[in-house]
Amino acid sequence: AALLHRIPGGRRSGHISHVAAALQSSMEDGQNTGDRRKPAGTGESSRCSTPVLDADRADRLRDKMRRRMDSGDRWFSLEFFPPRTASGAVNLISRFDRMGSGGPLFIDITWHPSGDPGSDKETSSMMIASTAVNYCGLESILHLTCCNQTKEKITGHLAKAKHLGLKNIMALRGDPMGTDWEEEEGGFNYAVDLVKHIRSEFDDYFDICVAGYPTGHPEAQSYEQDLRHLKEKVDAGADFIITQLFFRADTFLKFLDDCRANGITCPILPGIFPIQGYQSLRQLVKLSKLEVPEEITKVIEPIKDNDAAIRNYGIHQAVEICRVLLDSGKVPGLHFYTLNREVATIEVLRQLGLWKEDPRRPLPWAISAHPKRKVEDVRPIFWASRPKSYIYRTQDWDEFPNGRWGNSSSPAFGELNDYYLFYLKSKSSKDALLQMWGKELMNEDSVYEVFTCYITGQPNRNGHKVMCLPWNDDPLAPETNLLKDELEKVNRRGVLTINSQPNINGKPSADPIVGWGPAGGYVFQKAYLEFFTSSENVNALLKVLKKYEPRVNYHIVNVHGRNLTNAPDLQPNAVTWGIFPGREIVQPTVVDPVSFMYWKDEAFALWIEQWAKLYEDESPSRMIIKYIHDNYFLVNLVDNDFPLQSCLWQVIDDMFELLDAPTEPLRDITV
Amino acid sequence: AALLHRIPGGRRSGHISHVAAALQSSMEDGQNTGDRRKPAGTGESSRCSTPVLDADRADRLRDKMRRRMDSGDRWFSLEFFPPRTASGAVNLISRFDRMGSGGPLFIDITWHPSGDPGSDKETSSMMIASTAVNYCGLESILHLTCCNQTKEKITGHLAKAKHLGLKNIMALRGDPMGTDWEEEEGGFNYAVDLVKHIRSEFDDYFDICVAGYPTGHPEAQSYEQDLRHLKEKVDAGADFIITQLFFRADTFLKFLDDCRANGITCPILPGIFPIQGYQSLRQLVKLSKLEVPEEITKVIEPIKDNDAAIRNYGIHQAVEICRVLLDSGKVPGLHFYTLNREVATIEVLRQLGLWKEDPRRPLPWAISAHPKRKVEDVRPIFWASRPKSYIYRTQDWDEFPNGRWGNSSSPAFGELNDYYLFYLKSKSSKDALLQMWGKELMNEDSVYEVFTCYITGQPNRNGHKVMCLPWNDDPLAPETNLLKDELEKVNRRGVLTINSQPNINGKPSADPIVGWGPAGGYVFQKAYLEFFTSSENVNALLKVLKKYEPRVNYHIVNVHGRNLTNAPDLQPNAVTWGIFPGREIVQPTVVDPVSFMYWKDEAFALWIEQWAKLYEDESPSRMIIKYIHDNYFLVNLVDNDFPLQSCLWQVIDDMFELLDAPTEPLRDITV
Repeated sequence: AALLHRIPGGRRSGHISHVAAALQSSMEDGQNTGDRRKPAGTGESSRCSTPVLDADRADRLRDKMRRRMDSGDRWFSLEFFPPRTASGAVNLISRFDRMGSGGPLFIDITWHPSGDPGSDKETSSMMIASTAVNYCGLESILHLTCCNQTKEKITGHLAKAKHLGLKNIMALRGDPMGTDWEEEEGGFNYAVDLVKHIRSEFDDYFDICVAGYPTGHPEAQSYEQDLRHLKEKVDAGADFIITQLFFRADTFLKFLDDCRANGITCPILPGIFPIQGYQSLRQLVKLSKLEVPEEITKVIEPIKDNDAAIRNYGIHQAVEICRVLLDSGKVPGLHFYTLNREVATIEVLRQLGLWKEDPRRPLPWAISAHPKRKVEDVRPIFWASRPKSYIYRTQDWDEFPNGRWGNSSSPAFGELNDYYLFYLKSKSSKDALLQMWGKELMNEDSVYEVFTCYITGQPNRNGHKVMCLPWNDDPLAPETNLLKDELEKVNRRGVLTINSQPNINGKPSADPIVGWGPAGGYVFQKAYLEFFTSSENVNALLKVLKKYEPRVNYHIVNVHGRNLTNAPDLQPNAVTWGIFPGREIVQPTVVDPVSFMYWKDEAFALWIEQWAKLYEDESPSRMIIKYIHDNYFLVNLVDNDFPLQSCLWQVIDDMFELLDAPTEPLRDITV
Repeated sequence: AALLHRIPGGRRSGHISHVAAALQSSMEDGQNTGDRRKPAGTGESSRCSTPVLDADRADRLRDKMRRRMDSGDRWFSLEFFPPRTASGAVNLISRFDRMGSGGPLFIDITWHPSGDPGSDKETSSMMIASTAVNYCGLESILHLTCCNQTKEKITGHLAKAKHLGLKNIMALRGDPMGTDWEEEEGGFNYAVDLVKHIRSEFDDYFDICVAGYPTGHPEAQSYEQDLRHLKEKVDAGADFIITQLFFRADTFLKFLDDCRANGITCPILPGIFPIQGYQSLRQLVKLSKLEVPEEITKVIEPIKDNDAAIRNYGIHQAVEICRVLLDSGKVPGLHFYTLNREVATIEVLRQLGLWKEDPRRPLPWAISAHPKRKVEDVRPIFWASRPKSYIYRTQDWDEFPNGRWGNSSSPAFGELNDYYLFYLKSKSSKDALLQMWGKELMNEDSVYEVFTCYITGQPNRNGHKVMCLPWNDDPLAPETNLLKDELEKVNRRGVLTINSQPNINGKPSADPIVGWGPAGGYVFQKAYLEFFTSSENVNALLKVLKKYEPRVNYHIVNVHGRNLTNAPDLQPNAVTWGIFPGREIVQPTVVDPVSFMYWKDEAFALWIEQWAKLYEDESPSRMIIKYIHDNYFLVNLVDNDFPLQSCLWQVIDDMFELLDAPTEPLRDITV
């Protein structure tokens, strides 16, 4: 009776049939080999409406932890604090993107009561956490302190967090303001009050984390009493514990044992603090009222003015502690106090083998962690380099397309006038942009040169590398690098490419450059090319494209909306898809005629917003960009014949050949 | 200003955005190159929710005609009359399938007032037309005569036809019963009354055809008066005209010119009557009160006892007429009076080059023509050989899956206890089945032999070829032939295969064997194998399958519902898909764990219903089939690694090897 068993008949659950229910029950009984079980009570969703490439996506944090613990798969997490300035926020967000690629199970954002933490300011704890979730796709915990706060205020913060898609709260008391703090009748006096409040007001919506103090809370009467307080917090509804920092592995392991002895059974994650500098250590020690052990001060004091030496020591020391913790078999994950810095934490994680050097992508684009978007698995290719803009402009959608673009995608894209938003802003300063794109433009050729330098990675005539363009805030993707030579050639001649992908005819899903999705699958792409070019070029291109019917689909549009396409019946064209074991086809990227018209507005506006506005009003440089904006066309081309070598370069070559031919002048067909 | 134009701003239509509306308008203005325009007023559906491989599918008959006329693509159509007997109905339905493959634009079914034509009898006009539409996927016209009928009765017929998915009516007066027919005040006296009635009761729902009489209706006062009547019928709302038969092309062409001169502008289709025999010609002439021209009688009379000679003459004569008609450039399509026979009509069509020898399949399975099912483009593979059963069991679904299986498919399959239904019945008689499957079975090996003979096409020990099995009413598909050798080997040893497909790694969509869908695409398949086999075999198979994780997905189930699968999260596995220019991925066939449980019931029941019941109660033969039904398992296997050679034969080989190994006895893991 090991593997096969009888399906109980007649059982019904919701509106699924008894057969589905029986199959579901068969999964829940654990008879299903190999695969994860769905949580009970999700009978209906067992016939999922999305391929669910990554079952993790749908899970809440505590379930992810449970699953990792069951499989013995250790994780790490990263703590950040909100920045002081707007440009600090821009930097932190790009740090999220970089550190997110290493595969943290979650990050957390501290709560700074003095910094208006629940506000809409770009530097607030709330907005940083929201950005991490929505725009960076990171599972995130928002800290929340309750000290000196009214219930209404706290409920307001929680409701706002929920509305923004945040699902996890670190419930803290926080530091009392002033020296004469006293307990308040019915107020929030301890973190446990906040835990109870969250559970009573928001039921089971949030996952709740609480703090543990391996050496006891500095204000606790005793270590034992502090353990009892921790037990109370867990009993009140906390799901897991992250500890305050400590300097010796033994400290944590003893604390862990004591917790277990006191009946605390939830996950307890050690807070790891890699020493990164003399000052930051001193400051932290002061705040946390911890004592630095002598074996550490003995090493550090002599090198206190050598930052590099201290950091190296900190890395070494953190790795040692982590190794002991992991080797104990009692620690499922490590939590890092990053101090918003990258180098030390990443190095520790690398040495521990926890940093994912080659992260598997569940889809070719980064998935938002907002619970509403968890089914999303199709997007237009146009925003490939501006995913945060796409997320922003579709944030009001109630349903996101899954499996198919046409079914559930709403054509109601939000307007994009908010170029100032920190998660949409260029990472580079105005000065840096002028150095890259030219302090003074002479003519259209100056613009072609900028594009060409961006593609080749060669410095421009003033010796500056072009690291970004208005449509591409990052250097060229490794995949695009495959097309470098061809791209250089056409950009030089004014085919100003802003997006492209090579054709792929069935590479393994584990391919380091183009792979995505679960193991054992195959990924495919149709060749895609998107560019701005002059109306003269478009005029020739249109003649050339007739030769490529129906192999090449095109959309050609200018800023005024003049539009030409050969897309059949306004259907989307799937240009990236994957075939995986035991699943329906996944087609995460489409070229869609309707959303292209929204992208067109954004793509043209970027000429003005990000480039022209760098220059004085009426200046020649600004007029050149303005001319391009007003007169060029935005073109996209898809080569449908993905098993053959892409013909798109040939199309462009043919266009240039036609333009170069010394025959009768071309009749203008663009007006 | 030829190709590009400005998109008008701010225009809204329904709840599509102005961008979609503008794009739509751009299509309607005819600026879109190459592709068909949607009819006006379908703004919303312009972003179709289905890949719509064949835009024809969504169109009504008159639009299909219009489109064909616009493109100069000539068509043919076929007229049938309802059969007298149930077995005649079975034969006619399989004739529909065969003649449907030649690509008629539509067929029509005559109305026999004396045969209870609107009833649920399997031989009624209504049921035959419904079967043609729903189960054979043929665009069909139901004739309806109004003579001596009450309005209520007629409305009832029309409502029933609509409910069954019929969309086209041929409105006729019919022959009055008795000799003293008189006009009835307010009753149906002429076909025009019926046309008016249909339009007044059902608005524009039906496409309406009326009859034209090239030599005038026999009861009309004059040819001219008859033309005026025809004009009245068209003015009352008829969409097109099919003519009575005629013997000379000139007769029709003059009639056509006279119709046009009288202001009749709709399509007029000539009714072609290939002379197929002396008696049938005499009978038809008598009924239609036509005179056979002398040049024909002169030829026929001398050979009136030579059926073959008359038929050959009829073919020759029909081809001649058709050529003249087509060459006139005035005839968009030809309508054939088939007399329910195949040979002559097909031969005429072949000689005219109108018969599609290699019909393009829009999908790998035959699409039902019921309007509710027009978006359907995903089905489980299990019913591949029993599509009519699948259609029957899902006829009550309100929505059909399109694009994805999981989204809209309902798990509510109807029960299948209706093995007696003529469109589900075997085409073979009980005697023929006994000859194929054995009048007397000795043991399980006798059954293996039947399967093996079916696969190989070799006669069985009594000299009879096995042309069908309970699960396969047709000989082996050409595609399955690719797997013949392997199939033979495993069936010999009791792996009783009932469904299989080879893996395909990107063959052109025009491939004559495995191709489907629009031109310029590529089709793919995962290897699939489905079979019954003993629990001993399954026991070994389960051990073997562990080696093939996760490459091979399996579902194994017995009649009692013992069930084992490694399908992740009950997700469907797409096993046939296609990539086409300018479209989303189409995945018409899935292996779905939920529907497999419904198929399982049907597949096991076929052992009893179609095979065991051929034998006496308690007879050894019946007991052998019953034993298999009670004890064997139904297994399906998918090899997910479609670019590699299928490993499924290796899996079976490994199973036999394990069974043959003289080692420790296998622990039974099937109970």
